[in-house]
Amino acid sequence: MENNVGIVQTQYLEVKEPLTLESGKVLPEYTVAYENYGELNENCDNAILVLHALTGDAHAAGKQSETDKKVGWWNDMIGPHKAFDTNKYFVVASNMLGGCSGTTGPSSFKPQSNERYGLDFPVITIEDTIKVQKKLLDFLGVKKVIVAGGSMGGMQALEWSITYSDMVSACVIIASTSKLSAQSIAFNAIGRNAILSDPNFNQGKYYDAQTQPERGLAIARMVGHVTYLCEDAMQNKFARRFQDKEKPDFDFNIDFEVESYLEYQGQTFVDRFDANSYLYITKAVDLYDAAQKYGSLENALKKTNAKFLLMSFTSDWLFPTVQSKEIVSALVKAKKDVSFCEIESPCGHDAFLLEFETQTKIIKSFLGVNGGNNE
Amino acid sequence: MENNVGIVQTQYLEVKEPLTLESGKVLPEYTVAYENYGELNENCDNAILVLHALTGDAHAAGKQSETDKKVGWWNDMIGPHKAFDTNKYFVVASNMLGGCSGTTGPSSFKPQSNERYGLDFPVITIEDTIKVQKKLLDFLGVKKVIVAGGSMGGMQALEWSITYSDMVSACVIIASTSKLSAQSIAFNAIGRNAILSDPNFNQGKYYDAQTQPERGLAIARMVGHVTYLCEDAMQNKFARRFQDKEKPDFDFNIDFEVESYLEYQGQTFVDRFDANSYLYITKAVDLYDAAQKYGSLENALKKTNAKFLLMSFTSDWLFPTVQSKEIVSALVKAKKDVSFCEIESPCGHDAFLLEFETQTKIIKSFLGVNGGNNE
Repeated sequence: MENNVGIVQTQYLEVKEPLTLESGKVLPEYTVAYENYGELNENCDNAILVLHALTGDAHAAGKQSETDKKVGWWNDMIGPHKAFDTNKYFVVASNMLGGCSGTTGPSSFKPQSNERYGLDFPVITIEDTIKVQKKLLDFLGVKKVIVAGGSMGGMQALEWSITYSDMVSACVIIASTSKLSAQSIAFNAIGRNAILSDPNFNQGKYYDAQTQPERGLAIARMVGHVTYLCEDAMQNKFARRFQDKEKPDFDFNIDFEVESYLEYQGQTFVDRFDANSYLYITKAVDLYDAAQKYGSLENALKKTNAKFLLMSFTSDWLFPTVQSKEIVSALVKAKKDVSFCEIESPCGHDAFLLEFETQTKIIKSFLGVNGGNNE
Repeated sequence: MENNVGIVQTQYLEVKEPLTLESGKVLPEYTVAYENYGELNENCDNAILVLHALTGDAHAAGKQSETDKKVGWWNDMIGPHKAFDTNKYFVVASNMLGGCSGTTGPSSFKPQSNERYGLDFPVITIEDTIKVQKKLLDFLGVKKVIVAGGSMGGMQALEWSITYSDMVSACVIIASTSKLSAQSIAFNAIGRNAILSDPNFNQGKYYDAQTQPERGLAIARMVGHVTYLCEDAMQNKFARRFQDKEKPDFDFNIDFEVESYLEYQGQTFVDRFDANSYLYITKAVDLYDAAQKYGSLENALKKTNAKFLLMSFTSDWLFPTVQSKEIVSALVKAKKDVSFCEIESPCGHDAFLLEFETQTKIIKSFLGVNGGNNE
């Protein structure tokens, strides 16, 4: 299709210099997996950095081969004439530090070693992940950037606007928060518990084993997945229908469609994600608090020079509208340029991946009017 | 204290006759653990049956010895001058079928055997549990009864009013539902998954083993526990405070107070509850749908002869007000006598165990005016 970015390949930037992390630990070298779509202009100021959520990767748009059946995770948003218009913008996506899709993480080999990091990988933070993204943008020659992301991607976008305030001209934060609530930390902690309790986890040293911590990771995913959906939508989709039967079997196998769906979500996740990465990334999310270093969110945001767009979804109970409004309110107090829209949607937290038409209209309008130096 | 029921002992009724279950399977004999408080009157019509929630037991009120530090789970509601006034009423509580506190369940020995049931115990339903309670009330000589319970106890009270409609004069249903939503089934299924995946579960045959499925059961409890609390209350209680430290440790041990709290909830639960019972009871709850046999909830409730009181709590997101209102609405359509109150509370689903002052006022008023044959 003409409005898709076409065939793209994930590329890899090898950074052969140490990265000092928030924890004080040092990562001696690292690789960043990334993709880019569109062309960087002469002024190097038409870049958009899109930032993935918990389990995303660098493959944000297009296909990786002609026969590829799957497109990138934000393909609906990235391409010619789309929200992030590759005819106008140079769009960059990368796998986050600690991930398992090409960027250095716990499943990577230690430098000059045939041993994988496992739990020897240092705990990373959102602040660490954006340092790596900054290195990538510097390498690509980007001078000014619009940052955009949903969920954890929104947290990274927010942190970008604070830390690299001279570089960020606009910031799009979708279905996100400046810090996790106690309840969200609880759900992440339960997921980590399930992984850490899996007998095949073996202190994170399972890569060469015949058995993997699959059940623990699947259970972690199931917990997460329920928080991504809206209760009403689950009810509309599954209600209390039995799975391929008229009445229950009176045993502990699957009775209801919703159980079958969860099992499927858990199993397919295990095939594509690393249990250790799940630990590291959820921990980074738990630890993030945009206000912490500055005393208040307002103070943190005083540093920024970007125009902001925040969007939330009515049925998102993981990062509900009130959490977006906290950021909006702090931006207003800090006298920054901010647009905010709560979008009516039954898709829960996942809406940022699904409600692309409404998001596209709003983002196009925001970038058109408020694109700052990028226009 | 004079308004407590004093020292009580759990008693055991041995029923040496078979019980045919909803599944078609037959339990050859069974024991019912129960307690009673107050005196049955001459007409045998002043009984109140209180019905416990997921992990409750027969010990609903009072202490079991002079030195007992813990009182029964609904002690605030049962006693002289309390909501369920033992000066006027004969209050009965029993452990449910499938439980692990004296009534026959998967941890019980098979008849004339030194082998425990484990997963050979038949899957039971809410309908089965009330048959066992009926047997107990018959044994105690009760002719008319008020039934009352919160959460799963409310589901049992509802089913009592339908199945034994000639016997139930009043029915108090608190923080409950006529059927679980897809989301609630999902949370229960995740809990069961955690237990079934625990390597120490061993197909339910762990009773004589040195290791028990403790982590699986703890994780199941953590998932459940988050659903019993209200997000705002969790936030007020824990926010993002670190546990005994100023900053994170950058490892996968506990960082936040809320993590420590969850771990504590999980561990203390393991000490008092059986993993197999958790499977059976959550399955019974999942399978319950008051409307199913009658085509509609209204039709089911047409059978009833009781006066109804329903209470819900504003911050309960497990069985929210809308689910109580569904029952109320069906009762109104069935032309039954129904009172309903949504109580403002920050305590989430657990409010039925905590908000005793408001509940007491409402229940006293309901029983005083609407106690029917019991007055």
